[in-house]
Amino acid sequence: MLNSGFSTIVEDGDAVVILDQTRLPAEVSYVRLTHIDHAAHAIRVLQARGAPLIGATAAYGLALGLKDGADDDRLATVCSLLLATRPTAVNLQWALSRMQSVLRGLPEAERLAAAWREAKTIAEEDIATNAAIGRHGLPLIEHAAARTGTAQVMTHCNAGWLATVAHGTALAPIYAAHEAGLRQHVWVSETRPRNQGQLTAWELGQAGVARSFVADNAAGLLLMRGEVDIVIVGADRIAANGDVANKVGTYLKALAARAHNVPFYVAAPVSTIDFACPDGAAIPIEEREPEELGIHALGLADCAVRNLAFDVTPAGLIAGIITEHGIFPPQQLMQLRARLTQ
Amino acid sequence: MLNSGFSTIVEDGDAVVILDQTRLPAEVSYVRLTHIDHAAHAIRVLQARGAPLIGATAAYGLALGLKDGADDDRLATVCSLLLATRPTAVNLQWALSRMQSVLRGLPEAERLAAAWREAKTIAEEDIATNAAIGRHGLPLIEHAAARTGTAQVMTHCNAGWLATVAHGTALAPIYAAHEAGLRQHVWVSETRPRNQGQLTAWELGQAGVARSFVADNAAGLLLMRGEVDIVIVGADRIAANGDVANKVGTYLKALAARAHNVPFYVAAPVSTIDFACPDGAAIPIEEREPEELGIHALGLADCAVRNLAFDVTPAGLIAGIITEHGIFPPQQLMQLRARLTQ
Repeated sequence: MLNSGFSTIVEDGDAVVILDQTRLPAEVSYVRLTHIDHAAHAIRVLQARGAPLIGATAAYGLALGLKDGADDDRLATVCSLLLATRPTAVNLQWALSRMQSVLRGLPEAERLAAAWREAKTIAEEDIATNAAIGRHGLPLIEHAAARTGTAQVMTHCNAGWLATVAHGTALAPIYAAHEAGLRQHVWVSETRPRNQGQLTAWELGQAGVARSFVADNAAGLLLMRGEVDIVIVGADRIAANGDVANKVGTYLKALAARAHNVPFYVAAPVSTIDFACPDGAAIPIEEREPEELGIHALGLADCAVRNLAFDVTPAGLIAGIITEHGIFPPQQLMQLRARLTQ
Repeated sequence: MLNSGFSTIVEDGDAVVILDQTRLPAEVSYVRLTHIDHAAHAIRVLQARGAPLIGATAAYGLALGLKDGADDDRLATVCSLLLATRPTAVNLQWALSRMQSVLRGLPEAERLAAAWREAKTIAEEDIATNAAIGRHGLPLIEHAAARTGTAQVMTHCNAGWLATVAHGTALAPIYAAHEAGLRQHVWVSETRPRNQGQLTAWELGQAGVARSFVADNAAGLLLMRGEVDIVIVGADRIAANGDVANKVGTYLKALAARAHNVPFYVAAPVSTIDFACPDGAAIPIEEREPEELGIHALGLADCAVRNLAFDVTPAGLIAGIITEHGIFPPQQLMQLRARLTQ
């Protein structure tokens, strides 16, 4: 149904078709979104997930929401409905702000068509952005491969093409290295409680990239034993000071990488940087349903659960942020911003 | 069937009855061991698990193995069969060495009865040892409760009464604090891939201790947010230099505790210290079946898996080792040994 085996979201007439990521890797199936409520549901239950893909899905969701009217009230209602789906990924806010600023300047009659055009532009830009992240990150993997023969890369969660419109963020340099014929092997961690590591294992397997699946808990010993040359993860929101919110468990990997002098990189488009957010403590951390931990189904219905979906990695643990404009130290994001707004 | 709701292993005629921990927490059921192969199987598949309980189960398994003969050859065969079940927990070696040194000095005809007596002694000593660990660890929880109102304790895996004959090791101070009426709350982490955190949540619930269940990945954020006052874990083997092998993921918690100046303690009987092992790098780390990660069942049969069951926490990250003889800095284990052998 999709145009390519490596795309997560495509237009189909006046609807949008997405890969249903809650059924992967066991089953490759698709969901057709014809109403804003479908788009909001898809984001909320993780059928579409990953910060960049959340942005693109929300943009299309907004277009779906204008089908029956596009006045200012409707626009505001649609945006607030979509904004409420996930609190941590800033790309959601970013995509909706961008859509609104384009649409508010237009007469009501032109807004629906413009919304579809802008959503398509956001999706296409995501593809180009991630390809650029891959190019900028490639030398890091080349360096590791040159040093040890086979680059041993560790990642967390899924920041591959499944988390974006195409290419991925953290996995973009890995795919670029694969195309360049470099020897590499990826440590894929399960990523409890939602097991997005299974998605990473699946998509790397589809592309023919060598990988091993491990429990999240194994990261410390692998780093201690020297079995990891570089860690690359994605991001859901980057604060102005370089602190990074990403899938829960990222921070533990960053601490272990630091303990063993292994460079820890974050790959993300500039749209993931929230310049209005001073630091990690100001990033809202989503808490999800206890059921994701599965313990209540085991007869422990009385057991309290805290299901924190993200954590914060301090800028000081991060070697660099791989963006579409190059790799920047996390402490220099304000200079990057100044350059971009010149 | 068991004498007490809080005991994991009891004699029953010429058999031994154990709680089947692979069925907990969904189901409380028991397994009757009448043959050494049953005991070896129980240890291998984690029906009986936790370093101290592995020791006691192996001691009883040895007694079961002498039913049809107790000459030196048989004794050696029985011991090597049991030793091969799990490589990391030193209590297995310790219990079997102790059994052998008692039995080898006796005429063959007396060995079977002596084996049952010695296994019972090992089990009874474990109960007393763990009660002493609880007494020695109690002031740590008192201190935390006095400072913050409610002691927030984090643990990993299951080092409770389920992992021992009774009382537990890491949870012994928590049970002592509960009896003393202290306010406390325990963070229980899932402990992938075998989810022993479910056992901890279950046994703390049975005892009425407040606890919350979290993904292993959440430890970093909880520590960063100041929601943890003290971390207490068990151990499978402690090297002479104080490095500790414990369930995989322990090391990540120790790193995060250090990053936020939260004291990290290990609770274990002296029998868990392997004075012949110089440091953590010399501790054999068990790798278990890939199936425990569950990914092959999802259509990713080609995906490589590394299932490391333990990791090593360097002595430098450990505030103290809570033993039946008191709390010792990990760097002073050789002095403890000298004191014990005086």
